[in-house]
Amino acid sequence: MTYCVAMNLREGMVFVSDSRTNAGVDHIATFRKLHLFTVPGDRVIVLQSAGNLATTQSVVSLLRARTGEPDGHHLFNVKSMYQAAELVGGTVREVIARDTGPQAQSGIDFGCSFLVGGQIRGEDQRLFNIYPAGNFIESTPDTAFFQIGESKYGKPIIDRVLNYDTPLRPALQCALISFDSTIKSNLSVGMPLDRLVYLRDSFSDTLQRRVDENDDYFRTLRKGWSEGLRRLFNELPAPPDL
Amino acid sequence: MTYCVAMNLREGMVFVSDSRTNAGVDHIATFRKLHLFTVPGDRVIVLQSAGNLATTQSVVSLLRARTGEPDGHHLFNVKSMYQAAELVGGTVREVIARDTGPQAQSGIDFGCSFLVGGQIRGEDQRLFNIYPAGNFIESTPDTAFFQIGESKYGKPIIDRVLNYDTPLRPALQCALISFDSTIKSNLSVGMPLDRLVYLRDSFSDTLQRRVDENDDYFRTLRKGWSEGLRRLFNELPAPPDL
Repeated sequence: MTYCVAMNLREGMVFVSDSRTNAGVDHIATFRKLHLFTVPGDRVIVLQSAGNLATTQSVVSLLRARTGEPDGHHLFNVKSMYQAAELVGGTVREVIARDTGPQAQSGIDFGCSFLVGGQIRGEDQRLFNIYPAGNFIESTPDTAFFQIGESKYGKPIIDRVLNYDTPLRPALQCALISFDSTIKSNLSVGMPLDRLVYLRDSFSDTLQRRVDENDDYFRTLRKGWSEGLRRLFNELPAPPDL
Repeated sequence: MTYCVAMNLREGMVFVSDSRTNAGVDHIATFRKLHLFTVPGDRVIVLQSAGNLATTQSVVSLLRARTGEPDGHHLFNVKSMYQAAELVGGTVREVIARDTGPQAQSGIDFGCSFLVGGQIRGEDQRLFNIYPAGNFIESTPDTAFFQIGESKYGKPIIDRVLNYDTPLRPALQCALISFDSTIKSNLSVGMPLDRLVYLRDSFSDTLQRRVDENDDYFRTLRKGWSEGLRRLFNELPAPPDL
């Protein structure tokens, strides 16, 4: 499984992905699910992936390889984030068509989802959610975040505290708490986390970090959240009758 | 959709169910999902249902009708909660076999899940989770609660605060907070709630109530939880770097 969240906010964007993949519970591995296509000063395009690892790796490999084609239409020369989303969606369809082929009857789910966000000079930052069919939706200030993968355990806290005007630091804090809840409830989502904060109009991907089990801030946050929740629970009144 | 939770604890048991059903988003209705088979002083058997409403209603109707059969094997004369779980599981298989029949090719999911809990004189209280195939598992002190239906949004708070030794009042409080989180994140889970608290060895189902939107305690609890979460979030340190 996988959990990825991306937030499209007034001050910029926040991306956080876990790194655990599994094929059954006895085949667990660590793979990065946050991928960058950056031309400093011109564009930062962030891809986050969930679903069939063979499909998502092929999609990212093909997108990466094609950035070297001088006459090609690729992520380093598309004119807009919309075109970037089209390109990712088209590549998803291409890989699934190749791997399922007419002879494939394996019953395996080749599907995957991508979040594609960032900014290309000439337009504002944008965020897209690419479905397994390759079609996609775009975030708006009314819907300031998207999730893919194991999204439910970590959604209530985002629903409660995040909106378009949330500054980047509390937004990142919210995303990390959302991951803590998810990791606690689903063994197939695991550390380390990859996180990237994008400042609007910066065209820079330098605010990127890997967060592992020993990260001081993450440890403080999960301890404080866990103890605070229990304290809050105990402070609230118990039912007056049974 | 549906959300039901049942807790099997040292002092007794807590059952809470929502009451919203939907066939598509434009066909929403209110149906009770908590069903009682009580012989005061002898047995309290609680059924909670999720899944295909036609299936679950038929299962409950047949179980109810058969309690009137003088020579039958039914919920009013089974000797143990294990036999009650077998009977519910068998009736699930019977209804699904009837409704899917050899001619049925509709592609509809006739499946359903049940939680079956309570106590029959002569043995301790017990709780079972009946799968769509009619087989079942039983709770133990290590796993003191089961959920069916839309379980993920409301699971983190139960994971954090509940264990076998939690007294019944805070356990009920925990269940209600779990419902608040679920209702906030999924429109297809809705009020009113049916809740029943069973005191171990009481063989009585009188601690039963319907909780609607105007319930004073539930309003206080959801307001306090929502405000408390936001306060806790704001009290915790924001990330030191971005």
